[in-house]
Amino acid sequence: MSARYLLPYAPEAIGGLPAGLDALVWDGDGPVPSDEALREVEFFCLPYLRHAVALPVIARLPSLKAVQTLTAGMDDVLPHVPAGVAACNARGLHDASTAELAVTLILASLRGVPHFTRLQDQGRWSTEFHQSLADRTVLILGYGSIGRALAARLEPFECEVVRVARRARPEERVHGVAELAGLLPSADVVVLLTPLTPESRHLVDAGFLARMKDGALLVNVARGPVVDTGALLEELSAQRLRAALDVTDPEPLPADHPLWHAPGVLITPHVGGPSSAFLPRAERVLREQIRRFENGEPLASGH
Amino acid sequence: MSARYLLPYAPEAIGGLPAGLDALVWDGDGPVPSDEALREVEFFCLPYLRHAVALPVIARLPSLKAVQTLTAGMDDVLPHVPAGVAACNARGLHDASTAELAVTLILASLRGVPHFTRLQDQGRWSTEFHQSLADRTVLILGYGSIGRALAARLEPFECEVVRVARRARPEERVHGVAELAGLLPSADVVVLLTPLTPESRHLVDAGFLARMKDGALLVNVARGPVVDTGALLEELSAQRLRAALDVTDPEPLPADHPLWHAPGVLITPHVGGPSSAFLPRAERVLREQIRRFENGEPLASGH
Repeated sequence: MSARYLLPYAPEAIGGLPAGLDALVWDGDGPVPSDEALREVEFFCLPYLRHAVALPVIARLPSLKAVQTLTAGMDDVLPHVPAGVAACNARGLHDASTAELAVTLILASLRGVPHFTRLQDQGRWSTEFHQSLADRTVLILGYGSIGRALAARLEPFECEVVRVARRARPEERVHGVAELAGLLPSADVVVLLTPLTPESRHLVDAGFLARMKDGALLVNVARGPVVDTGALLEELSAQRLRAALDVTDPEPLPADHPLWHAPGVLITPHVGGPSSAFLPRAERVLREQIRRFENGEPLASGH
Repeated sequence: MSARYLLPYAPEAIGGLPAGLDALVWDGDGPVPSDEALREVEFFCLPYLRHAVALPVIARLPSLKAVQTLTAGMDDVLPHVPAGVAACNARGLHDASTAELAVTLILASLRGVPHFTRLQDQGRWSTEFHQSLADRTVLILGYGSIGRALAARLEPFECEVVRVARRARPEERVHGVAELAGLLPSADVVVLLTPLTPESRHLVDAGFLARMKDGALLVNVARGPVVDTGALLEELSAQRLRAALDVTDPEPLPADHPLWHAPGVLITPHVGGPSSAFLPRAERVLREQIRRFENGEPLASGH
């Protein structure tokens, strides 16, 4: 009555999986399967955007060998994964969608889309000069898989891309984070792509923001707590910096939070991953991980 | 008392021009110089976004040899240029800015920026799936200098780009406009970049729109009258198509025009060219054209 796999999609919907794969389907919406049904589950893929209901299920899987997420970040998941169980993020799955949203937020902010949307709602035509991405310097902080996808998308826009990661990788033109303080003052746009770790929590504090250029744009597509919200609010209220945030702290942002109406801020509700790009790429990740698991090969992970 | 050049910028502001260039400066805002001052003007560069006041000046230049615009389109200018006078558009000047705005409009529309801006104004956090540019097919109609800049910017987004121009150019993978009817039904996004000519006026009529896929996005960064506004309004009202329009017909769009509030439309007020990318590139064009004019070489033009 039990199965080896607990998956959010029916194996036949994913396609390309071994015939007759021993899988139980649970998408996080219906009732959690019984302990009896979960007893032999070795591979659990967490349903996307359903971590809150899915994480407690991990403790009910006595045969568990691997937890697979469909997210890039695992900060919320790792504390729930027992020792000896592989914890695998979906490295690469969200590259296209998240890098694309980062470019969307940069372009929409610089070229004035929120402003023109509000003018449109008032029936007002007012041609004005806005900033272009061309000729700007964009600093990417956290240069991994999504960072590379973002840099590739930015390159043709006649802008300069500066790459920063924990450790310098000169062969990829990546600066180490130790150089960050010296690089920040020349960036027109700073894009955050760091995973949330004890070191990156409030990495963007008052001191970080103070080093940013007047009028520069901070883009957060990483995790809300990478930014000290109070410090950012001060810079926004003073109209010294602008921001485009797909993630916030707290998240979801309460209706009465002052960040909603701060000047020069564009907020999207954590939609870096959720797009039509998700499903075909999620299926690709699951297909490959299940193939590895079936063959006893090490699973791919990059967290 | 007269000069050979009538320019919108002081020669010393442009830089790289021959020392002591015989130029009169008029930016279209102040009073028009006297007939006496205009008598020997051979090269007139129209001030950007000031064509309405500048075009009548052409008739007051008895020594005129060349009219230079800082626009890509010359549809409004050509009727004012006497026979024997060179009419030069600023080919290439707006490639970066206009191609960038086209990507901005595509990404903002697909990823829901106007929608999220309105949610933000209401303090509402609502994560939803939107369409990505990844996996979409983008058809570029009018594949010239700006089209090439747009295709270069789209390429890294994991989308398919289909190029259509008046005549097929197989070596550049460009289809001829005769193939358009067959190509339209498979495009998720159609970007208009055609110059306004008698043939392109209302090229996008009810029949064109009917061939577009359900839910597809029409992006106009060309000229308003390329689209039959009434026909587009019908498709928008029926919520069968979406649109992102930087140009409209009529333009400017009157405050009470129904297009402002049609469902699924994003309108920007003709800001394809006006951005911080303009000035450095305008100076580059003027520097090169004046160098050619001084040396008696043919001027560059691409209209």
